[in-house]
Amino acid sequence: MTAFRLALLNPNTDARHTEAMGVVARETLPEGCEVTAVSPERGPTSIESEADSVVAAAAVAELVRQLPAHDAYLVACFGDPGVGAARELTEAPVVGIGEAAFQAAVTIARRFAVVTTLPRSVPEIEDALERHGVRGRCVAVEPLGIPVADQGSHNADTTAAIVDAGRRVVARDGAEALVLACGGMADVARAVASEVGVPVCDGVAFGAMTAYSLWRCGLRTSKSGAYGWPEAIAYSGMPGFRE
Amino acid sequence: MTAFRLALLNPNTDARHTEAMGVVARETLPEGCEVTAVSPERGPTSIESEADSVVAAAAVAELVRQLPAHDAYLVACFGDPGVGAARELTEAPVVGIGEAAFQAAVTIARRFAVVTTLPRSVPEIEDALERHGVRGRCVAVEPLGIPVADQGSHNADTTAAIVDAGRRVVARDGAEALVLACGGMADVARAVASEVGVPVCDGVAFGAMTAYSLWRCGLRTSKSGAYGWPEAIAYSGMPGFRE
Amino acid sequence: MTAFRLALLNPNTDARHTEAMGVVARETLPEGCEVTAVSPERGPTSIESEADSVVAAAAVAELVRQLPAHDAYLVACFGDPGVGAARELTEAPVVGIGEAAFQAAVTIARRFAVVTTLPRSVPEIEDALERHGVRGRCVAVEPLGIPVADQGSHNADTTAAIVDAGRRVVARDGAEALVLACGGMADVARAVASEVGVPVCDGVAFGAMTAYSLWRCGLRTSKSGAYGWPEAIAYSGMPGFRE
Amino acid sequence: MTAFRLALLNPNTDARHTEAMGVVARETLPEGCEVTAVSPERGPTSIESEADSVVAAAAVAELVRQLPAHDAYLVACFGDPGVGAARELTEAPVVGIGEAAFQAAVTIARRFAVVTTLPRSVPEIEDALERHGVRGRCVAVEPLGIPVADQGSHNADTTAAIVDAGRRVVARDGAEALVLACGGMADVARAVASEVGVPVCDGVAFGAMTAYSLWRCGLRTSKSGAYGWPEAIAYSGMPGFRE
Amino acid sequence: MTAFRLALLNPNTDARHTEAMGVVARETLPEGCEVTAVSPERGPTSIESEADSVVAAAAVAELVRQLPAHDAYLVACFGDPGVGAARELTEAPVVGIGEAAFQAAVTIARRFAVVTTLPRSVPEIEDALERHGVRGRCVAVEPLGIPVADQGSHNADTTAAIVDAGRRVVARDGAEALVLACGGMADVARAVASEVGVPVCDGVAFGAMTAYSLWRCGLRTSKSGAYGWPEAIAYSGMPGFRE
Amino acid sequence: MTAFRLALLNPNTDARHTEAMGVVARETLPEGCEVTAVSPERGPTSIESEADSVVAAAAVAELVRQLPAHDAYLVACFGDPGVGAARELTEAPVVGIGEAAFQAAVTIARRFAVVTTLPRSVPEIEDALERHGVRGRCVAVEPLGIPVADQGSHNADTTAAIVDAGRRVVARDGAEALVLACGGMADVARAVASEVGVPVCDGVAFGAMTAYSLWRCGLRTSKSGAYGWPEAIAYSGMPGFRE
Repeated sequence: MTAFRLALLNPNTDARHTEAMGVVARETLPEGCEVTAVSPERGPTSIESEADSVVAAAAVAELVRQLPAHDAYLVACFGDPGVGAARELTEAPVVGIGEAAFQAAVTIARRFAVVTTLPRSVPEIEDALERHGVRGRCVAVEPLGIPVADQGSHNADTTAAIVDAGRRVVARDGAEALVLACGGMADVARAVASEVGVPVCDGVAFGAMTAYSLWRCGLRTSKSGAYGWPEAIAYSGMPGFRE
Repeated sequence: MTAFRLALLNPNTDARHTEAMGVVARETLPEGCEVTAVSPERGPTSIESEADSVVAAAAVAELVRQLPAHDAYLVACFGDPGVGAARELTEAPVVGIGEAAFQAAVTIARRFAVVTTLPRSVPEIEDALERHGVRGRCVAVEPLGIPVADQGSHNADTTAAIVDAGRRVVARDGAEALVLACGGMADVARAVASEVGVPVCDGVAFGAMTAYSLWRCGLRTSKSGAYGWPEAIAYSGMPGFRE
Repeated sequence: MTAFRLALLNPNTDARHTEAMGVVARETLPEGCEVTAVSPERGPTSIESEADSVVAAAAVAELVRQLPAHDAYLVACFGDPGVGAARELTEAPVVGIGEAAFQAAVTIARRFAVVTTLPRSVPEIEDALERHGVRGRCVAVEPLGIPVADQGSHNADTTAAIVDAGRRVVARDGAEALVLACGGMADVARAVASEVGVPVCDGVAFGAMTAYSLWRCGLRTSKSGAYGWPEAIAYSGMPGFRE
Repeated sequence: MTAFRLALLNPNTDARHTEAMGVVARETLPEGCEVTAVSPERGPTSIESEADSVVAAAAVAELVRQLPAHDAYLVACFGDPGVGAARELTEAPVVGIGEAAFQAAVTIARRFAVVTTLPRSVPEIEDALERHGVRGRCVAVEPLGIPVADQGSHNADTTAAIVDAGRRVVARDGAEALVLACGGMADVARAVASEVGVPVCDGVAFGAMTAYSLWRCGLRTSKSGAYGWPEAIAYSGMPGFRE
Repeated sequence: MTAFRLALLNPNTDARHTEAMGVVARETLPEGCEVTAVSPERGPTSIESEADSVVAAAAVAELVRQLPAHDAYLVACFGDPGVGAARELTEAPVVGIGEAAFQAAVTIARRFAVVTTLPRSVPEIEDALERHGVRGRCVAVEPLGIPVADQGSHNADTTAAIVDAGRRVVARDGAEALVLACGGMADVARAVASEVGVPVCDGVAFGAMTAYSLWRCGLRTSKSGAYGWPEAIAYSGMPGFRE
Repeated sequence: MTAFRLALLNPNTDARHTEAMGVVARETLPEGCEVTAVSPERGPTSIESEADSVVAAAAVAELVRQLPAHDAYLVACFGDPGVGAARELTEAPVVGIGEAAFQAAVTIARRFAVVTTLPRSVPEIEDALERHGVRGRCVAVEPLGIPVADQGSHNADTTAAIVDAGRRVVARDGAEALVLACGGMADVARAVASEVGVPVCDGVAFGAMTAYSLWRCGLRTSKSGAYGWPEAIAYSGMPGFRE
């Protein structure tokens, strides 16, 4: 088997996050795997609202078009923007870090909680839990009140706030594991787990492994039905996806 | 009260559809209302796949930014692309024609069916039904096998196919009303209803009226929580939504 | 088009409520619309329990029979008693203020809360939310502990209690909009909205507009299936619905 | 222990059905139990539509008021009209034959089907299945196309049609048991079971036993919360339920 | 009719619990019924975790094989271990005390709460509520923090703790009835009901009556489909269920 | 990092299946991983009914106790018997091949179908889909009518039947991918995929990779809450899980 080549697509334009998530993916995948971590040229430096998200989703589709020769794609924003579109644009497997984090959580815990950034994202996350069929297994979606831009290991205060939120949902809601709802929190997952005492699921690490797993199993995105290649639609002012 | 000004946003770039839907909205709204029907400068001429849809959603957000002085917005594509983002970008009510069509259907019938264009859109529509809490009231999502680009009153064959599909779901599945899953079908709704013998819900007409109704009631999009103004995020290569 | 004639059916026998709701409907509908607001001759002066509700539902069916020549019907009690029966008894659209209020709320907010009268009605309202597919979007059903009979603008204390409840669900539960679960609260909706700072959905105003919207779109109650004319059943001691 | 006194309330006015269901209840209950089988003075001779049902529900509430001294009540129409109201009006247990039939079915089979009278009742039954949390366990709701008025052991043709429908849902849908969706079918349940070869659940027999079971266990309707005594509401033109 | 013979299968090996539950069943069933209360020779003395539960489920299947000549079976552990397997192994009705308690609760109350032993069992009970379609009707699953082994009337402190928990869920969550989530609590149900003032549903008493009710109705476990006799599978090291 | 040691637990006693699944796991995992494939000493040679399943679940718990020094466990029967119990008995991750197959399917397809052995297992699989929150994404559960014992690559006829069933659900139901509901089908997955033309998800291969992925991420089964170590319960006639 040749080496596994993962394209990690950071939907926001913050190069620090792109790099940090690339490091997490590389460290988690077995030796010899290659990770190309990229972000769009234009768009938000972090994704906090639906308006940011629609810009990012279109950027993800564009990135897949620009990076065709990879074995799998990881969309590295917890809201999974553009994942469905990306699946139409390639036969390789496409994984979103949000769905990956949920899959990890339900495999190692019966009830989990999500720690997120701002209160405004709670309904979005609840709807994602519903869509993935795991709302009944999530005991709390706990916002920190700290925006995405301030997440990451270079910010000690954020880690402490995540730990506090984690302890709260364990004690108050019976959370048995945590899901970190932000790619920017990926590099603090192990530190939080060690402090809170329950497993902490980060979608970047587990999502990279899920992409690798599908590849090892020879499983590719179905081209029959909803994820089939885009229809041959004429586009105005830009190239179409299939013309 | 001053006159009601509706911005009808066609997420695709097909001017014929934009114009036809503008006519439907104008004819349905009470006299004196104003309808500005627009479409994006760039993007797909019709929306058949998720890849088309993410481009369109970003365009809808952009259109709202460019058209600030309206009393309400109608997003005129059945998949409701960008509706959530649009709600963040204005205090005026924002209505999607997909959700509007479902609301009409459940008010006049206990069980309905959706007639759509291509088979690949069936899962997307089922998921939308689920999201809006009406999947249990829909007895069938019936694809015509005819793409969006060929819908509309200028195409007699399409109307006949819609009528056939409508009769099928009434006889076979007990559909009591039909929902037409394409803005491009708006101008044939009454003809289909007359042929099939059950009410036919078109989201352009009813959605325009829902927008008007919210305005008459003084109901505006909540700026508290999920639909609050976008966060002040730095953008690269393009203006942010709030800087 | 001739003028729109709405029959507003107050299922309880409190003439003050009938009149107040008639005023709300008239003020919300566009100029030239006619509203006939009626209530039954016998039955409860307010509807607090299921026992009151079954009497009221039968009265609603009777009122539709007595008022045939209208373009639409609005059943003006939050529990929507008799709405299904009314739909069988006419081809005109029939709207319940409960379902209308929910439809308004989900169009302008992602999460809402319901403010109701007595704690005993909480399960009934939760079940209605479930039936309409919006239970997951409602963050709280908050009872005032004040009966229906004491609601309305002539009662300053009730308005203050509604405002308090509204502020509570916004702060504690993240409610982005309120639904007032009582026709008798219709005339205080705007005052509450102004005090609490989030949109307040009242089903009388929005329901009247929904009825009008359906009429404008030429959408009538489906006579195929569940809402078909009643079967020709023999009745004892009273006239049947179709003999 | 004194003898168990069951009030069987037939919501329609067909004395033949009242008597036949009384016989079924008496034959199923252990020796020494007393069954008072009654029907309202006014209302439909059978219940096929929602309009019939709202009249019947009000009649059920009235019947409970007139028959206070019983140990339990059985509402003997498959749609369970007025069951909630009846529960408010007594401390004795109240059982509906619809809910009882579903409870029997899920205890003896993993998947069941419902055989009903007219196609128009299918949505009503599906909604009841949903409300009782068993929609996922029902593989089919199969209408006979024969109205309630023609059901019963005095009608050989109906029994044959029920048997045919039963065989159909067993072979086609994998039904493991049948539920008969009509009190008027109670006296043919055993004949159908013997012909089709799967258990047939009739809510009259099992509902009478459920009422008896609750009584034996000392379980009475909760007077705390939703089923508490009706509020003291003034009534116009008729006595209120609690004044 | 001959006398009803119930086999009460206690899945744990605590003879005190077996005997106490046998007494509850005998006292609840009508005179003349026979109750054989048994427990396995090997396995846990109480069932607190899933590991205990899988041992107990296998033991239940074995007990049914050893006790063929009974009219019905009652599996007397709240988690209903082995109930599905037991249904495959007999034509007689099989009732689990968990499902029976839920059926009683929803018949006499619109909202109920469950009082359980240890916090770790909360997810298991929530999942059972979901599986039985009644999660939306349960307002709380309240753990006592006291293990199964210490439940029962011989332990005054436990009764007081159950009463406290019951008062808490009534006042805080609006519970209208209680379900005791442990066979070992069966003999204190009436004492708790009297102290808390709402009905208390114990699955041993009501489950015994449900088994009796099915038998009176001639309803037996369906042998068509999921509960059919086990397939003829070869077993290693032990006798198979059908060889 | 040391080599990954997976314990593959075949819940049935068929050594041919154990060996075949061990080969699949070894071939899918990266080089250097160790797979110990075992089966119980006593129990069914294949698992077709719930009675077989409860015996197998208890055996799985016993196997985990006997094989403590592994990095992860894979329970290799599609019904996932004993997975919850196994999670209580180790800190290592435990994966069931049923849940793993569903996770793979929803990542590469929007709608999938399950191909199973006997019709009697359809309800069991539907309930598992429900439990894992993916019932709405499964368009069909298609039985072959061929028992587990006859599955596997040594049986050409079975492969042809799986291919036929696969083609049927793709054409008739719009299945975009297949899930093979039997560990014994693992070694024909690629052949079926090649014939049917859609991805085929086998839980043995993907489940082994999921176990490996969790291990790479440092994610272990949560010991807080439902999957905590078993309580210290006294056992009769056999050793307890924690004494």
